[in-house]
Amino acid sequence: MENKFAELRKRYEEVSALGSARAVLAWDQRVTMPPGGAPARARSMSALARTVHSKATAPEIGRLIGETWDWAQAKGPDSFEAAYLRVLKRDYDHATKLPSEFVGEMSAAASAAMAAWESAKKNSDFPSFAPHLEKMVDINRRQAEYLAPGEPHYDTLLDLYEPGMRRAELEPLLTELSEGMKPVLRAIAERRAAVSNEILKGDFEEGAQLALADEIVKALGFDFSKGRQDRSVHPFTTGFSLSDVRITTWTMRGWLPASIYASMHECGHALYGMGAPAEFELTPLAGGAGLGVHESQSRFWENFVGRSRPFCEWLLPGLRRHFPGKFDRVSPEQFYLAVNKSEPSFIRVEADEATYDMHIALRFRLETALLDGALKVKDLPGAWNAGMNELFGITPKNDAEGVLQDVHWSQGTIGYFPTYSLGNLMAAQLDEAMRADIKDMDGLIARGEFAPPLAWLRERVHRHGARYFPADLLRKAIGKERETAPFLRYIKTKYSAIYKF
Amino acid sequence: MENKFAELRKRYEEVSALGSARAVLAWDQRVTMPPGGAPARARSMSALARTVHSKATAPEIGRLIGETWDWAQAKGPDSFEAAYLRVLKRDYDHATKLPSEFVGEMSAAASAAMAAWESAKKNSDFPSFAPHLEKMVDINRRQAEYLAPGEPHYDTLLDLYEPGMRRAELEPLLTELSEGMKPVLRAIAERRAAVSNEILKGDFEEGAQLALADEIVKALGFDFSKGRQDRSVHPFTTGFSLSDVRITTWTMRGWLPASIYASMHECGHALYGMGAPAEFELTPLAGGAGLGVHESQSRFWENFVGRSRPFCEWLLPGLRRHFPGKFDRVSPEQFYLAVNKSEPSFIRVEADEATYDMHIALRFRLETALLDGALKVKDLPGAWNAGMNELFGITPKNDAEGVLQDVHWSQGTIGYFPTYSLGNLMAAQLDEAMRADIKDMDGLIARGEFAPPLAWLRERVHRHGARYFPADLLRKAIGKERETAPFLRYIKTKYSAIYKF
Repeated sequence: MENKFAELRKRYEEVSALGSARAVLAWDQRVTMPPGGAPARARSMSALARTVHSKATAPEIGRLIGETWDWAQAKGPDSFEAAYLRVLKRDYDHATKLPSEFVGEMSAAASAAMAAWESAKKNSDFPSFAPHLEKMVDINRRQAEYLAPGEPHYDTLLDLYEPGMRRAELEPLLTELSEGMKPVLRAIAERRAAVSNEILKGDFEEGAQLALADEIVKALGFDFSKGRQDRSVHPFTTGFSLSDVRITTWTMRGWLPASIYASMHECGHALYGMGAPAEFELTPLAGGAGLGVHESQSRFWENFVGRSRPFCEWLLPGLRRHFPGKFDRVSPEQFYLAVNKSEPSFIRVEADEATYDMHIALRFRLETALLDGALKVKDLPGAWNAGMNELFGITPKNDAEGVLQDVHWSQGTIGYFPTYSLGNLMAAQLDEAMRADIKDMDGLIARGEFAPPLAWLRERVHRHGARYFPADLLRKAIGKERETAPFLRYIKTKYSAIYKF
Repeated sequence: MENKFAELRKRYEEVSALGSARAVLAWDQRVTMPPGGAPARARSMSALARTVHSKATAPEIGRLIGETWDWAQAKGPDSFEAAYLRVLKRDYDHATKLPSEFVGEMSAAASAAMAAWESAKKNSDFPSFAPHLEKMVDINRRQAEYLAPGEPHYDTLLDLYEPGMRRAELEPLLTELSEGMKPVLRAIAERRAAVSNEILKGDFEEGAQLALADEIVKALGFDFSKGRQDRSVHPFTTGFSLSDVRITTWTMRGWLPASIYASMHECGHALYGMGAPAEFELTPLAGGAGLGVHESQSRFWENFVGRSRPFCEWLLPGLRRHFPGKFDRVSPEQFYLAVNKSEPSFIRVEADEATYDMHIALRFRLETALLDGALKVKDLPGAWNAGMNELFGITPKNDAEGVLQDVHWSQGTIGYFPTYSLGNLMAAQLDEAMRADIKDMDGLIARGEFAPPLAWLRERVHRHGARYFPADLLRKAIGKERETAPFLRYIKTKYSAIYKF
């Protein structure tokens, strides 16, 4: 059996090494590739994707999983071998259940939809995108049906991003969350002028923003011998191994927080990516437990650390060094207030902590209705605008800043958005538990001592890699179920102090 | 038949797309990868190499080549189809003649030899490298025997890098070249103090060197929408398609010419790489006709353009702009003399135009003797030093600046060095022919109008891609056989004016 397991591992290592190769190509495409490289890159990436897919779905892998399954289970459900097979089997089943013509159709439809979305967004022209979105909704239904015939489609899709979770569990959490936030948002709305973020606007040299961003992530624990930070159109994190994890950030000359918080957000993902034990390298256990957990890590560093008062205190000398003259008369408290100003906004990625999850609630409501057939694609823009009005009291002036703002649906990812809110909830739960263990968190942060919180996350979360489903991981980490109370407590405490209500 | 040819093309496109993927990984490894990424990168690259090899040597490719051969020949030997099959068959035969265990052995031995060479060079410790070199010589003999049983080994190896060439053709050229250079070198040696290059030494800010290098290659015709220039430990050129060609340069703070001429050299390779017709994309006809032709392109821009008097004239304002104060009182003539100072030196890559080929002559003499068994590896350092003394009148003070300086033999490339000299010869032949066609070359260069020489090379050389063997390409381009006279004329004219003899 050891030999069969070793053979399986060897096969998976090949798949994993080729998958990493593909990730390198994708990184280069987004960070360094000259525009002329695009057509050839698309061909290289799809050739590589076909190769990976064919090796990952080789019948021998299925056979070896079957043959070693009982032997691994006998080592205990928490054993490396059992966990290895559990995660691999899940991936293998997913990959083999989709007929390869369907995979091709899905990929071609998504490429076409993304191109249509880009131009539709540019021209704020929803009708030109509508047929593509209809196709993607249909493809999502068919994908769900292939993966789990007869099961509720949304459950199956959600499970792709948040393993083990079902809509029946998710929906009450999201409802509690929006209901809980409403009074906070109302209170903020009544005091909107109380907080100013004017000091964050101006002219901030972009080279200095990047240098500061490097300093910040280095302080948080990002190891530049095992990663790098670059600039790209949209910030992202990718990894080719536990020792080569790359983040990107963006800079906006007139809006300083963009680079700082994008860096911290991606750094959170990267620290998780670098944090699995070395023995998980080249196994299905490397990588995270799911998108929600991943987002909990990025949000933790971005918001629970980065938008905290002590962090602003620590950051200020760096700001003064990199932007001479600009922050001389700014106090930590002023900076703290500025980066926490809350207001209703059209764009999810620019939303503050208090309003962010309302954007998710809207998307969840609409994507489930699309999938169920209760909402027609042609009626989506109207439903979007009505939802924005209901939740925020504002109406997008066009579809570009409304229903067309996000790429997700055009890529064919339905069931993905909720993981952002799940990440927020989990981040708050981890933050509470961490603060119970680490008494002087604020003092540590104010002194730039980020190693203790990182060590805590390494021990509770990172070292498990993809070994557990998200809910099990949370239970293992802090002995709790997913709940909204810690996040709501955190938001209420923070914003009532800021806006004095 | 059209269908079979189309099927063959489709298969080759897959191989080519995956080969490009591997090249992206190699570029990243040398330019952007953090140190921690090395082990995973080695695995990804070897997984990709195995995949490419297995697809490139698929029996179906051999079968399709056989089935379409006569049909393609009937279209004429110069037809796209015939050329396509000719080049592909050559590659396919090479790849399939080597047993895969041997390929594995070769690759493992080369990795070990390179590692041993690096440390031997660092410690100037030839004996620790000797067994590896013995192994590589043996592997080269066996490789040659697999590829062309019973044929002279050096012919077979040389043909890998300079298709169609044999030692019996090469040796007289190299002999003529060194014999022809000897009087020039003697004359220079007697006047060594006549030329100073002190103005090139000093403290040149490296960011400014890189900015200047970008300006220079842009002026030469390097299209930054289809390529990029970065910094790396050793300058190199690579390409992933005709529209994504990347060069690197290096900078030495205290020695300005390093970055300028490395950039121009690699730019020459890149212009060739970008210059094949679009229909050659994803075919075996993309890429160059061989290393000698490639080197003719890099040398042409580096030396025949870059070290010319009018180029120095054009360059000077840029130098003054990037290095304020440093070149205010330097005349174009002074700069021209400085970048053409000739002196015997130990290191090939630092050698000037007049001495460079003597370094190659030494390597050719030694590598043929090693391969024939006339020279034992243990006697190599002695033979090297004796050769240096004979050719240059100087003796390396240790093996690091002697026999251990180059990586080539440790990589297992015997038969490669001569292509550098072949490149010099061809560059001179092209330069003469070009100057016969373009009357005001010096005027164009002095005004920074590099488009006409580039257009000439595109028309005569680049557009043929790998369609012809180097000798045929030269005949096609300028109606000449390979000869040493133009290069010797060029060197004698140039250096007798500089050193006044």
